[in-house]
Amino acid sequence: MENLQIKKLGEGEFSSPLADRATHFIDDNSRILVCSRTDEIEPILAKGATIPSFEAAGPRETLFFNPEKTTCGLVTCGGLCPGLNNVIRSVVYTLDRGYQIKRILGFKYGFAGIISKDNPLHLTQEMVEDIHLQGGSLLGSSRGPHDPGEMAESLHRRGVNILLTIGGDGTLRGASAIAAACAERDFPISVIGIPKTIDNDLSWIQRSFGFATAVEEARKVIASAHAEARGAKDGIGLVKLMGRHSGFIAAHATLANSDVNICLVPEVAFDMEGERGFLSALERRLNRKGHAVVVVAEGAGQDFIPASGATDDSGNQKLRDVGVFLKQEIMSYFHKKGREVTLKYIDPSYIIRSLPANSLDSEFCASLGQHAVHAGMTGRTDMLVGSWNNHFIHLPISLAVGQRRHLQEDGAIWPRVLEATRQPRTMTSSR
Amino acid sequence: MENLQIKKLGEGEFSSPLADRATHFIDDNSRILVCSRTDEIEPILAKGATIPSFEAAGPRETLFFNPEKTTCGLVTCGGLCPGLNNVIRSVVYTLDRGYQIKRILGFKYGFAGIISKDNPLHLTQEMVEDIHLQGGSLLGSSRGPHDPGEMAESLHRRGVNILLTIGGDGTLRGASAIAAACAERDFPISVIGIPKTIDNDLSWIQRSFGFATAVEEARKVIASAHAEARGAKDGIGLVKLMGRHSGFIAAHATLANSDVNICLVPEVAFDMEGERGFLSALERRLNRKGHAVVVVAEGAGQDFIPASGATDDSGNQKLRDVGVFLKQEIMSYFHKKGREVTLKYIDPSYIIRSLPANSLDSEFCASLGQHAVHAGMTGRTDMLVGSWNNHFIHLPISLAVGQRRHLQEDGAIWPRVLEATRQPRTMTSSR
Amino acid sequence: MENLQIKKLGEGEFSSPLADRATHFIDDNSRILVCSRTDEIEPILAKGATIPSFEAAGPRETLFFNPEKTTCGLVTCGGLCPGLNNVIRSVVYTLDRGYQIKRILGFKYGFAGIISKDNPLHLTQEMVEDIHLQGGSLLGSSRGPHDPGEMAESLHRRGVNILLTIGGDGTLRGASAIAAACAERDFPISVIGIPKTIDNDLSWIQRSFGFATAVEEARKVIASAHAEARGAKDGIGLVKLMGRHSGFIAAHATLANSDVNICLVPEVAFDMEGERGFLSALERRLNRKGHAVVVVAEGAGQDFIPASGATDDSGNQKLRDVGVFLKQEIMSYFHKKGREVTLKYIDPSYIIRSLPANSLDSEFCASLGQHAVHAGMTGRTDMLVGSWNNHFIHLPISLAVGQRRHLQEDGAIWPRVLEATRQPRTMTSSR
Amino acid sequence: MENLQIKKLGEGEFSSPLADRATHFIDDNSRILVCSRTDEIEPILAKGATIPSFEAAGPRETLFFNPEKTTCGLVTCGGLCPGLNNVIRSVVYTLDRGYQIKRILGFKYGFAGIISKDNPLHLTQEMVEDIHLQGGSLLGSSRGPHDPGEMAESLHRRGVNILLTIGGDGTLRGASAIAAACAERDFPISVIGIPKTIDNDLSWIQRSFGFATAVEEARKVIASAHAEARGAKDGIGLVKLMGRHSGFIAAHATLANSDVNICLVPEVAFDMEGERGFLSALERRLNRKGHAVVVVAEGAGQDFIPASGATDDSGNQKLRDVGVFLKQEIMSYFHKKGREVTLKYIDPSYIIRSLPANSLDSEFCASLGQHAVHAGMTGRTDMLVGSWNNHFIHLPISLAVGQRRHLQEDGAIWPRVLEATRQPRTMTSSR
Repeated sequence: MENLQIKKLGEGEFSSPLADRATHFIDDNSRILVCSRTDEIEPILAKGATIPSFEAAGPRETLFFNPEKTTCGLVTCGGLCPGLNNVIRSVVYTLDRGYQIKRILGFKYGFAGIISKDNPLHLTQEMVEDIHLQGGSLLGSSRGPHDPGEMAESLHRRGVNILLTIGGDGTLRGASAIAAACAERDFPISVIGIPKTIDNDLSWIQRSFGFATAVEEARKVIASAHAEARGAKDGIGLVKLMGRHSGFIAAHATLANSDVNICLVPEVAFDMEGERGFLSALERRLNRKGHAVVVVAEGAGQDFIPASGATDDSGNQKLRDVGVFLKQEIMSYFHKKGREVTLKYIDPSYIIRSLPANSLDSEFCASLGQHAVHAGMTGRTDMLVGSWNNHFIHLPISLAVGQRRHLQEDGAIWPRVLEATRQPRTMTSSR
Repeated sequence: MENLQIKKLGEGEFSSPLADRATHFIDDNSRILVCSRTDEIEPILAKGATIPSFEAAGPRETLFFNPEKTTCGLVTCGGLCPGLNNVIRSVVYTLDRGYQIKRILGFKYGFAGIISKDNPLHLTQEMVEDIHLQGGSLLGSSRGPHDPGEMAESLHRRGVNILLTIGGDGTLRGASAIAAACAERDFPISVIGIPKTIDNDLSWIQRSFGFATAVEEARKVIASAHAEARGAKDGIGLVKLMGRHSGFIAAHATLANSDVNICLVPEVAFDMEGERGFLSALERRLNRKGHAVVVVAEGAGQDFIPASGATDDSGNQKLRDVGVFLKQEIMSYFHKKGREVTLKYIDPSYIIRSLPANSLDSEFCASLGQHAVHAGMTGRTDMLVGSWNNHFIHLPISLAVGQRRHLQEDGAIWPRVLEATRQPRTMTSSR
Repeated sequence: MENLQIKKLGEGEFSSPLADRATHFIDDNSRILVCSRTDEIEPILAKGATIPSFEAAGPRETLFFNPEKTTCGLVTCGGLCPGLNNVIRSVVYTLDRGYQIKRILGFKYGFAGIISKDNPLHLTQEMVEDIHLQGGSLLGSSRGPHDPGEMAESLHRRGVNILLTIGGDGTLRGASAIAAACAERDFPISVIGIPKTIDNDLSWIQRSFGFATAVEEARKVIASAHAEARGAKDGIGLVKLMGRHSGFIAAHATLANSDVNICLVPEVAFDMEGERGFLSALERRLNRKGHAVVVVAEGAGQDFIPASGATDDSGNQKLRDVGVFLKQEIMSYFHKKGREVTLKYIDPSYIIRSLPANSLDSEFCASLGQHAVHAGMTGRTDMLVGSWNNHFIHLPISLAVGQRRHLQEDGAIWPRVLEATRQPRTMTSSR
Repeated sequence: MENLQIKKLGEGEFSSPLADRATHFIDDNSRILVCSRTDEIEPILAKGATIPSFEAAGPRETLFFNPEKTTCGLVTCGGLCPGLNNVIRSVVYTLDRGYQIKRILGFKYGFAGIISKDNPLHLTQEMVEDIHLQGGSLLGSSRGPHDPGEMAESLHRRGVNILLTIGGDGTLRGASAIAAACAERDFPISVIGIPKTIDNDLSWIQRSFGFATAVEEARKVIASAHAEARGAKDGIGLVKLMGRHSGFIAAHATLANSDVNICLVPEVAFDMEGERGFLSALERRLNRKGHAVVVVAEGAGQDFIPASGATDDSGNQKLRDVGVFLKQEIMSYFHKKGREVTLKYIDPSYIIRSLPANSLDSEFCASLGQHAVHAGMTGRTDMLVGSWNNHFIHLPISLAVGQRRHLQEDGAIWPRVLEATRQPRTMTSSR
């Protein structure tokens, strides 16, 4: 078990202004169990080892930063995700209404905005009041790393005490590097991450904002594919959903919608050809019912598809488009067999990413924003706020990056996907 | 003015069973003015010519077919469109509940189903009760013509008295050919068209079902593109909407959504290059605001794009994809200028076509279905049902096919699009 | 036929700045036929009388007011209606972007705001940019008349040249009275009405903004009532919809939703008791199917219910609540018969009135706002903008007030309601 | 800690047919920790006591009932809740597709259907295929207890082996009584509860189906109330939400929507009158902003309102309507002060209860249905299926009934509500 200790810039000495509102403060010793099953905790107890636990998030009575003189910076990085504006709004409201902090700097277009010569936005309650009604990010976003030292220097120069970064794996690495660069320079700047991953595949992040909204919309798109599939003889509706490394959106959208016949995810290998392969399974489905709905996560089947070698600005390797690939393979397979199929391919990516958050995500984003501010005010750094078994927690950034959360073939979700789709348990001959 | 006379198989001799429900019957002399402006009607009156008018649709007291022995066939052709299931449901309800006609044959997968050896579906109220909750077509659809004589023979063999066809330009031509083939063979079969055109571009069809639903969804997609555009520095949201020959969906979605900065339609020529061209206009917009939303109808700009020469099964010439083309041109233009733009391209076609109908379209579809049945029962043929200035009318098929309804540059809609987008009135140097 | 002539403050002398955008101007002689049927126009022609026509709306090349010195006031009155914010936004955009008019005064809370000592809002593009995403009215509203002379004086004092009023019957009377008071005082103030009637029951107003949105939401509510009705033995879902004088919302929501079994509207009398009465019809429906959905317009059945005599601030007589009345009558009827029914009553009024406009209404509101500004700039007054057979028109206010548009029992809509519900054609023994 | 042991009818002896699909079976020793915080578990470990845990739900390899001869009964009780049809559908699919059980009896209209002479519905996959697209319950529902012995006898007579009951507190008591009556009579009938509580207030039930859908819709209704409040001078939007004993819906809808200014729940006492009371707080809010949105859970403030003493058919004491009460109190308070306020009251109860489930609830319902069937097949009885820290569990019915889950004033949710609304922490002088 990795170290779950959270770094601090120092001890607090200022009273929280939240005391005036008689807020319920969280004790620093309040901790949340990592384990949720007896067979996880029992071996630990048997060894007499410490029970692993996360620090609980929440407002603290004593602060490291003096609210009267604190400046907070905020940046959104990477692709759009439902809820970005809700997080921004919550951060501004918590700083302003909760801590009476008025100097709130919104860096535009990702990390690039931190080192830009352009002035950041000065965020106010009035500016953010209605932004959650629209998708996207008020601050804009961009991909790609920037020099951590340069960013630390710029933050220091602008008098920033707390930097909140909203972004995924790459952004969290960047945040951690900024925290390190600040430490090297003895800049007492707190860097707090708010994890953003529409794929919901960050390690130790049980739930990520925007995911519920994404699944809701994905379900509607699958209904469209179903209508198209039934609208033609041997009709096939093919939907590509987000999921570079893991198939959570594809799997949950499949479970929320009963129309999917085959669901393909990065975690479960499959063959195209052969008796047990995908094309053969699809053909059998068409033989039985005359139409089929296929959902594929964008990272599935990457082993078939010659990698382009290219990377995007965040350094993520560019995936070849599995949706277009499957479409071509399917058309070619049935063409060779002289069977005319009608395939409609839907790729709703940007439509989903740019939605406003649904009510569940709205509430979740509001909490994340509050907890990130609370953590920053105590001088914690190089950490992110997350949620674990219905509690909000603090997590060292190092724990969340560098590995991905995956669907387990024998876990709670994938067997239900198999049950829901009735697709073959295995579509590869290699096992 | 073309001939607005409707063909009939013969005079009616049966009393309508609707009389039992004291339905308000429509007189055969009830007619709807074609003109709606004084400057249209005055020259006609000055010449002493007959005022042009359409026959009013609606139930008639005397029927050509004996409801006790009537068989009705129904077929849906071409691409999906919101409301197909509503029309099917309305036809079945009107036949069964209104005329006590129980033999209702649903031909599967378009005209191909009429000559297929497979039996058609026997449609009942129970089968169609809830189908309007889902998009698509219960009957499925297909493209492509079939031999009219063969179809006429098959209908005759199956005892069909009335054939209702739901489809667009190609389907209406097919319906007309079937009517002619029946006439040659002395088969007293009534052929009634229910016009389907998600683009709303059939001549003399002021309003087509599915269009309102399509515009509603298109507006949401444009909001997504807007969020993506604002989410990046020099962000561009590019949305391709339906509209092969006319830009009604693009124009109305633009008017219903205030985020569009440039709207391109087939009716209004534009250049890509040059001081006055599209790329230059887009650049000026980016210079002003840092982001832009572009909506393009699929048939726009076809003169730039080398035609592939290919046609689809309905014989429609395959358009080259203007969305992909514009994306490449825009990226290349700014790349050459060393300006990094972020373009997100959205093509929502199948998501829109497969939606269930909204309430406005639902009611409209219900009416079209009723009026088509009423017309068929009187022995009218080679006609379609439409709507004109808030009245339902009968229209010879010949009038609706072979030409398209277009946006007029100096009409009621396009100037408002220019006003809403503030795009240049002209983006071509050729005038 | 009433006089369709529009009053003008005087002749224009200023060139429209829209000319710079090469707007397509409308000729003052452009007129729209009132008649749409041959049997309406033929008697007129036979008499040699003038064909009745409305003046076409649209931008004019010559203006009465000098755009460089014009002040425009705007007020919203009466109950909320989807689209108010869209109209406000369109007015501000048209004034500012089209005519470069910057002095735009938004009077708060209805006519009361005109005579209030509080300063009106100074409306800008920035203030109204996103208001259409939310329902309600940026300006707020109120009911009730105020002294026209006092209002005219206040407008004059504030330098208002054009007053746009958005409201229903009472508001239009008020607007007409203000126009008269201005005329008496020789104040050259143009008063233009934008008709608002969620019930869609103003005379000569074929279509009113918010109506399509209201019907869409009403359909969803009826689906809820249907689920509740089927959820219990002898379950009854009872929905009260808007419609004080006419049943358009109830009728169209019924036509858009196939779940309604009985629809009651003000225009069609019915008895409660007796063999042919409503309660007996409801009982027969329950006997057949075990559940029933009833939709009632708020103005229906007012003859049964002792009037309270009270009036609201606009002077409208307060209706007794037909929904609550029907609920009690139904429960009491079946209780007497010893039959246990489960009735769920839904009154969605404020939920519907406060919605943002759907895409159809959004576009319509945008046009109304534009056309109202165009009309005001030409010095027309005491008129409203409307839509007739797909054209926008000018209408004297006197024509629209003082009488209501009603459903006709033998018109195009009500017979289809009867067909859809299969309710008895007559539920009264009095005819 | 109560006993967490699950009763069983006996040991299993039949192989699960799911083995053919290579399902991942759950071991009977798999258990889920009750505790999620270190300060919960540490005292237990200090005492050397057993760590409390729930039995994990899921398919078992060995069954008590022979799938080839099993009959399963299903009943829905109490008020409607989004997701009922999803649960029914999941149960039928799991039985039929998973266990090849074809005899599935749907008892109509609650427990009354079990003892009714009418035959239950014979449920098939085809019947339930599309039912989740609509709200309500295919089986209908009713309130009220029935004699457990009579029900046990009827189930036995009809050959039912497993009874699945979907309902709330009263239904679970009834299910437990049926299980006891079966035990007395040596009828080996497994009784499994699927907990339904739209209020989400059952003890040990962390999450209940329909709740997410309810909060989503409640948020929309609050947006309506907000528009109405802003639409008038001193406008007040008052929304009553579900929550007889606990304010979870009111609290979460408040957190998901930023428009609420005062939220009242049963758990937090408040005064009407007095300096610190609700009316005074509301007045101060109006003074500050000129409008206010108030959300009240139906069980709030019951101590002010003289109880009617009446009970509904399930024996729940009828609450006096706090919404109507508050409306009157508010109007009267301001009337006395001579201040004219405009109050719009919205009670969306049935509109919410009758919705179809959103995607999150859909997936959750599917899982509950599957797990209930799995549990029944093993001969477990007198238990319900629930979810705990992201695991599905088995729970003795006795644990869930007889007490309610409540909002804690110093818990994770209520302080955030105070923060979001900025309402006074205390609105009573009694503490």
